[in-house]
Amino acid sequence: MNEPLLPKVDFPPGSVWLTGAGPGDAGLLTLHALHGLRSADVIVYDALVSDDVLALAPGDTPREYAGKRGGKPSPKQADISLRLVQLARQGKRVLRLKGGDPFVFGRGGEEALTLVREGIPFRVIPGVTAGIGGLAYAGIPLTHRDTNHAVTMITGHDATGDVTGIDWKAVAKGAPVLVIYMAIKHLERIAVELMAGGRSPDEPVALVSNASTPDQRVLETVLSRCAADVEASDLKPPAIVVVGEVVKLRCGLDWLGASAGRILDPDPLSRVRRDETG
Amino acid sequence: MNEPLLPKVDFPPGSVWLTGAGPGDAGLLTLHALHGLRSADVIVYDALVSDDVLALAPGDTPREYAGKRGGKPSPKQADISLRLVQLARQGKRVLRLKGGDPFVFGRGGEEALTLVREGIPFRVIPGVTAGIGGLAYAGIPLTHRDTNHAVTMITGHDATGDVTGIDWKAVAKGAPVLVIYMAIKHLERIAVELMAGGRSPDEPVALVSNASTPDQRVLETVLSRCAADVEASDLKPPAIVVVGEVVKLRCGLDWLGASAGRILDPDPLSRVRRDETG
Repeated sequence: MNEPLLPKVDFPPGSVWLTGAGPGDAGLLTLHALHGLRSADVIVYDALVSDDVLALAPGDTPREYAGKRGGKPSPKQADISLRLVQLARQGKRVLRLKGGDPFVFGRGGEEALTLVREGIPFRVIPGVTAGIGGLAYAGIPLTHRDTNHAVTMITGHDATGDVTGIDWKAVAKGAPVLVIYMAIKHLERIAVELMAGGRSPDEPVALVSNASTPDQRVLETVLSRCAADVEASDLKPPAIVVVGEVVKLRCGLDWLGASAGRILDPDPLSRVRRDETG
Repeated sequence: MNEPLLPKVDFPPGSVWLTGAGPGDAGLLTLHALHGLRSADVIVYDALVSDDVLALAPGDTPREYAGKRGGKPSPKQADISLRLVQLARQGKRVLRLKGGDPFVFGRGGEEALTLVREGIPFRVIPGVTAGIGGLAYAGIPLTHRDTNHAVTMITGHDATGDVTGIDWKAVAKGAPVLVIYMAIKHLERIAVELMAGGRSPDEPVALVSNASTPDQRVLETVLSRCAADVEASDLKPPAIVVVGEVVKLRCGLDWLGASAGRILDPDPLSRVRRDETG
């Protein structure tokens, strides 16, 4: 490996890198993030950062857990931000490592603004978000020419931990494909609101939990039944929910399943058959 | 660098990796993509793949250009897909490298379905999409707790190269933040439709061209004026357009500008000032 060719940016002591770790598979880490893991004096990481990613840092780099998970006691956001300030003031290179991307429902902006207020230099290292990369590991594309030219990404919790702040009916009409983060807790209510907003009860839905990790599980269902099906399953958060016709493409694009023997359908939207009969 | 620690997956001869190259900065390439670049027998790349990314492949790996750019003659999609089949049938490891992410307006699904039809094994390597990572390099988060819990990503061209297939008024109402790919050509019409759908003429808009590359340029404007401002500028595609209050966060979060001396505002949404006066 020709090391000098790898792009490297300066990670100065006393600064913070707000870094996306991707959905789980360590192979989806970026080169900048790898460089950060190897250069950091301390790593402050979230619940959604996989062990495989952390294993890429030197074994003696101190790690601090700053996880937040629905329903469990967890550090307050302000405390996490101030801890980053404190570590940077000690002259450390602070790698703040978050699952997915720091600017996609990751509260990276809030942490960054605290750093700005306190005069701490920072850099943002984007990552592969689970709503894109995680779904790709389930064989579900976010967009496909025959199904959609728009997709809405949305969180199932608002700032109060509830879904009240979101106009789900407008969301329902806004794009043919919806990708919902942190949706399991409020899934029944979200599904009801989306159907009230005009989405068909038969619309395909997939849930992908622990996407891109060895524990990945995919549940395919439809909107009217999705909450009950999740309830009856042993599927656990973290999970991404996707609503829309792109879910049908999974039987053609499940490359991970194919590597384990699944036979893929080259015409998952039945276009050729439809064209021939229609 | 402890090479054995890096995650590596098998890239068998006669298979295709549909791979995202990220928005431009080679440091945003994933480890899987780097492994693919180093292992491939041939690289088939798009116009949006940066030279810095291609430079990470061994110098003697054959490269084939399969670029598509608005208004210029370019290979047909079906021809590109069939070329991938042909190369794989020659027993090569084919790295199909696309700007951003292959499943976000990247036509990765179409290429994959051709491979399925022809019995060619494939893998998808997600990448950092420009609509997330590119905007982060302009200091604009896709989501921020105080501004939005939803974001719609949309293409400014539909399958016919026009915007007729898109219900822009519904899009306007569907999410507080809109990220529009390939929008420059139809920007005036898109802005008119969004305002007709209820978006304010004063709503902040940013255009980021050549995001995350040394040629990155950012134009800040508002919805009513954006098309004229782009026209009067020398801003060229490829560019990402973002509409919504998150654009205001740039004056607090422009970390790239700060590294060149820009003073950042820790209160870009004027919340503290507003709280004090209201």
